[in-house]
Amino acid sequence: MKIELASNYGFCFGVKRAINIAQKYTNSATMGPLIHNQDEINRLKNDFNVGLYSNLNDVKENDTVIIRTHGIPKNDLKNLKAMNTKVINATCPFVTTPQNIVKDMSKDGYSILIFGDKEHPEVKGVQSYASDLDDVHIVLGIEDLENINFKHKKIACVAQTTKKKETYLEIVNHLILRNKEVRVFNTICDATFENQDAARDISIKADIMIVIGGKNSSNTKQLHSICLENCHDSYLIENEDDIDSSWFKNKEFCGITAGASTPDWVIQKVVDKIKNFK
Amino acid sequence: MKIELASNYGFCFGVKRAINIAQKYTNSATMGPLIHNQDEINRLKNDFNVGLYSNLNDVKENDTVIIRTHGIPKNDLKNLKAMNTKVINATCPFVTTPQNIVKDMSKDGYSILIFGDKEHPEVKGVQSYASDLDDVHIVLGIEDLENINFKHKKIACVAQTTKKKETYLEIVNHLILRNKEVRVFNTICDATFENQDAARDISIKADIMIVIGGKNSSNTKQLHSICLENCHDSYLIENEDDIDSSWFKNKEFCGITAGASTPDWVIQKVVDKIKNFK
Repeated sequence: MKIELASNYGFCFGVKRAINIAQKYTNSATMGPLIHNQDEINRLKNDFNVGLYSNLNDVKENDTVIIRTHGIPKNDLKNLKAMNTKVINATCPFVTTPQNIVKDMSKDGYSILIFGDKEHPEVKGVQSYASDLDDVHIVLGIEDLENINFKHKKIACVAQTTKKKETYLEIVNHLILRNKEVRVFNTICDATFENQDAARDISIKADIMIVIGGKNSSNTKQLHSICLENCHDSYLIENEDDIDSSWFKNKEFCGITAGASTPDWVIQKVVDKIKNFK
Repeated sequence: MKIELASNYGFCFGVKRAINIAQKYTNSATMGPLIHNQDEINRLKNDFNVGLYSNLNDVKENDTVIIRTHGIPKNDLKNLKAMNTKVINATCPFVTTPQNIVKDMSKDGYSILIFGDKEHPEVKGVQSYASDLDDVHIVLGIEDLENINFKHKKIACVAQTTKKKETYLEIVNHLILRNKEVRVFNTICDATFENQDAARDISIKADIMIVIGGKNSSNTKQLHSICLENCHDSYLIENEDDIDSSWFKNKEFCGITAGASTPDWVIQKVVDKIKNFK
């Protein structure tokens, strides 16, 4: 069986940067999981004693607190800074961009549309920067637009950095035909685009696709969805323990891709295990 | 043979308004053809002595000059106002909007994209309002985007008021994926949308379509193109003299639509003539 990695996969700029920051601050703690990969979070805990807070109330005086890659809501950051703590901001710069756009556009009298998951920490953070919180609307597709009442006929749109570009276009097209002005900010990050395009290319050729990443990672789920469009046997796994040897029976070409939070050492273990299946 | 008019057709708000203005100013002249319909221009000349200038140099002192529905370039308007003439502005307010958008966006450091015909007077007028004339790009489709070098990564888009919405979306989608910010102004006018939608609906049912309008009228040409997609026997005519009786042989359902510059009296003459074909 041929095994091939997608031409683009794995760690993006923001994740690499956040891990480098975390490794510099031993004995610190992150506010929420730094990235969406439990194996890497365990490694940071074991090798650098970087802990994890899931709630602001858990933070103690003199703590060094690292803001996660996805960012946190504006008021949480404000409260954290007001405490006697050292705050290190590892928010991905590509996430800071939509935060600032929402802040500026909301102030300038635009209704805000965010294409993303309501429950995703990145989206919760971005949303919190609007000055008019009642006029921020979060959607996953055009079907969610029906019941929205925008306060203005001028709409500013941002997307969660890891979303699928085709769906973003569907949403903004729907808005353009129905409003005077739609200001579209392309906040889907290039790494996401590149990983998506490469996943599409390899999944067309493969008869089995392995997508490695956290089960709660947005961009990993997008990759899995793209692979499924082209390759029926596409599996989403967190690490080599999730692999089932029966998947590979009679397969000739195994394609592999990985989400932006998946470290190379996890990918390597998966590849090594698959090599054993003939 | 059944004869049916599209549920929306003919004169738009801007054309009605311009004709009302012209009828008020007898013994005046328009700067360029007031609307794209020779029959109506002849009527204004015969009944109200509204003449036609095709060049600024023809204008004489004390003339009353009416600005055409499509607007004129900024400097022409400035020069006209500087002359000893009375200037009456019949530019459609829906054309003034993209003129102002281009003026503001160009000043704010956006590259400008106009979806329209380079040679159309409306587009020439809109284009002239940019402060940086080298960074205004006029396209008819995505194939024209390839060789454009925008000076900025922020692009403001406007459309000629009578263009097809589907093509506008194709163009802006192409730009959204390749630029940081695309500010999309929906300047295609509602009347155009409505006439286009109604032409689509009726041309699906008809086995012959008659589209009445000026041969140099942009919105009439769009209607003709939409009808051709659904009904092979779609004919563009200026008035009843262009009708060929052989078109109607063995036809059962004749649909009729008309461009935004086509007066009702021209449409009525066409309907009356077609009624004679069994």
